[in-house]
Amino acid sequence: MKSTIKHISGSVVAPKGFLASGVFCDIKRLGTGKGSQRGAKRDLALIVSEVPATVAGMFTTNQVCAAPVKVCVERVKQGLAQAIVVNSGNANACTGRQGMQDAREMTALAAKLLRMPAGHVLVGSTGRIGVTMPMESIWSGIGEAVALLDDSPESAAQAAEAILTSDTRPKHIAVEFKLRGKRVRIGGICKGAGMIQPGMSATGKRPAALPLHATMLCFLTTDAAIEARTLQACLREAVAQSFNRITVDGDMSTNDTVLVLANGLADNLKLQGPGAHSTVFQSALNHVCLELAKMIVRDGEGVHRIVTVRVSGAKTVAEADAAARAVANSALVKTSWHGGDPNWGRILDALGYSPATVVEEKVDLGYSAPGSRQILWSLRRGQPTPATFKQLCTAVAPKEFDLHVHLNLGKASAVMYAADLTEQYVDFNKGDVTDPATLGG
Amino acid sequence: MKSTIKHISGSVVAPKGFLASGVFCDIKRLGTGKGSQRGAKRDLALIVSEVPATVAGMFTTNQVCAAPVKVCVERVKQGLAQAIVVNSGNANACTGRQGMQDAREMTALAAKLLRMPAGHVLVGSTGRIGVTMPMESIWSGIGEAVALLDDSPESAAQAAEAILTSDTRPKHIAVEFKLRGKRVRIGGICKGAGMIQPGMSATGKRPAALPLHATMLCFLTTDAAIEARTLQACLREAVAQSFNRITVDGDMSTNDTVLVLANGLADNLKLQGPGAHSTVFQSALNHVCLELAKMIVRDGEGVHRIVTVRVSGAKTVAEADAAARAVANSALVKTSWHGGDPNWGRILDALGYSPATVVEEKVDLGYSAPGSRQILWSLRRGQPTPATFKQLCTAVAPKEFDLHVHLNLGKASAVMYAADLTEQYVDFNKGDVTDPATLGG
Repeated sequence: MKSTIKHISGSVVAPKGFLASGVFCDIKRLGTGKGSQRGAKRDLALIVSEVPATVAGMFTTNQVCAAPVKVCVERVKQGLAQAIVVNSGNANACTGRQGMQDAREMTALAAKLLRMPAGHVLVGSTGRIGVTMPMESIWSGIGEAVALLDDSPESAAQAAEAILTSDTRPKHIAVEFKLRGKRVRIGGICKGAGMIQPGMSATGKRPAALPLHATMLCFLTTDAAIEARTLQACLREAVAQSFNRITVDGDMSTNDTVLVLANGLADNLKLQGPGAHSTVFQSALNHVCLELAKMIVRDGEGVHRIVTVRVSGAKTVAEADAAARAVANSALVKTSWHGGDPNWGRILDALGYSPATVVEEKVDLGYSAPGSRQILWSLRRGQPTPATFKQLCTAVAPKEFDLHVHLNLGKASAVMYAADLTEQYVDFNKGDVTDPATLGG
Repeated sequence: MKSTIKHISGSVVAPKGFLASGVFCDIKRLGTGKGSQRGAKRDLALIVSEVPATVAGMFTTNQVCAAPVKVCVERVKQGLAQAIVVNSGNANACTGRQGMQDAREMTALAAKLLRMPAGHVLVGSTGRIGVTMPMESIWSGIGEAVALLDDSPESAAQAAEAILTSDTRPKHIAVEFKLRGKRVRIGGICKGAGMIQPGMSATGKRPAALPLHATMLCFLTTDAAIEARTLQACLREAVAQSFNRITVDGDMSTNDTVLVLANGLADNLKLQGPGAHSTVFQSALNHVCLELAKMIVRDGEGVHRIVTVRVSGAKTVAEADAAARAVANSALVKTSWHGGDPNWGRILDALGYSPATVVEEKVDLGYSAPGSRQILWSLRRGQPTPATFKQLCTAVAPKEFDLHVHLNLGKASAVMYAADLTEQYVDFNKGDVTDPATLGG
């Protein structure tokens, strides 16, 4: 069963029955004035469903995980929620008992003002690690955000702005498709920029097979009617193929979170378990997550070039994944991408030290335009092809290209959406200790 | 049993019966003129013992490994060698059958001119990957190097220069100590700079427990009389505590090699197996290898700061190692070191995503001067101490400092000698595709 996925406007308020807002409450304590009216970047967002929704979540597998993540892991298990409060500027990570209390208080205040049980409010945070939350700012921010809740595209855009940290632009999407004759919508906003190589699971526990590897936050809304367990299964699959396949700098954050609220107001026959209709929903969710994930890589800190690393012919999926991650995270490979240097020696080197089985004499390596099957081969069976240095330079010159690696040892494959490593990344992240406002998370 | 280790001059020719030379033969084909007399950096070195010596070696565990490594792995097994020929400017890696033939030809030519069996000559290469060796340059270089062999400190210094690539300075050491009343000497030269996170083993095969992680080359000479198997055991131990514990950029090279020749001319009673006298030799070898390894980190590409990461209280040594490597290779931690920012949040984040067991509430984290036990604690049991931001900035301001991480979960510990990540590293390694001479290995 196929359904056309149509892009629409409105991001998180595109689905029926969702409201959003984004305000400035000076969480970084910059003292640049109170209220969003002064033009400072918004730092607190609220997303609310008019009716209780089924919920699913995926969370960082970092053992050092932030208070809001701990709160969400517990609450998502209940399968029901109605609101998400999110702040930027402070990660509420490594903040101990005070941090847990603050995270719960954020949900409790929002719940009180929204007249719903505290357990139905979820929370997300991103920003500097190890600083306790400025709760007075938060209180005023939540108050203002509740007052401004709205289903206008402007409100959704303000929410998308409020969750950003070092991102240079907001990231949002909305799609519409049909499920058994009913129009269903999925909307989403996300943020990324640095500390980006998510490895999320549903429980925050690391499955043995899961690769060990931002703060990235993503909040999805849908008016589909879908049972919580089916929603969780769909989200796990969508995240596995999108957010868990991106890397900017190889660092996995303490706060990575993806949440989806499904309020059922599209009035489709409720999706329960696998089946043709769930597959349609899954395809749309995959599309939304992959588009958002790619926006994160494109807007990564200091990023100039995006490379999709496509490894195939590995012995196992775990080996394909390990090979792709070794290439995608090699400092030398990433700097050569920055330089526009088709340095296959560095790529082979990274493959060789990866945990994947690699036989030099079997490796094919080449380049194509994004998504194209027209590959310019640099190596075939470990031997340089007649492709000239100039031709190869031209292949790696565009802002985005695909790197194809065939290990020719098996049938498993994996893809990583990766970025180059630039002077700007270093400059941004070294910060300036004489100006604490420049110090990142 | 203790023996004083005295630093002496002469590096690889300090031990009795060793000769060295270093010449320019234009391996990079820069066409800057022939012969070292023109002032271009030397690129071919020769180290020769006057008599056959016992030999031991440690080699990269990268599955994509260079031809000279393959040749050495085979020959070191015999336990006997007499000469080492080394070139910089070309790694002879990913060069297929031609590469193997060239590596063997280098040893055969040197052997012929030196009048010894080809099997007694070892070979090392470092430089760009994937380019076949310019054998005409090599032939003339070996001829000149044999003619210039000498036991003068100048010759040793020329050999030390000839093995360098992006290093800014030569790296050498020599020590003298006593073994049963006899004066024994160990000398060594090495090179590093980029693609530095060695993980070497005696066979080039990766033991299950070995961390997966330059081209670094190190050539050691000693006049100690020591049986080959004992020498191999001592070298394995010394490398495990030195070269296998450094990282510049987290990339493990295709060419990492450490070789030691022991010619017995000190006339000590031959060391065989463990024992008090072998322990004395081991201590001296450990000292030599650690000093050389630290020189590599200090002269790493674009490196401004050196940080010794000391993890203790881990559940197992493998976990301590994994935790130390995660911190030492985190792009965000390394950029904060560059910025002089005591960003403990990033360090906790890296610990948390490492494969090591980490409990946030148990982690102690602090700084000291190199080797000092006077630690300024930043975190105790996961909680910030009263140390001020200014105090912590002062602790991480020096060119070299120690980072202490106590996991407080067990008794295992590990050390990594790490470097910061700078704009200069990126700039150097992105190169300039319009000027191939700037493109690194």
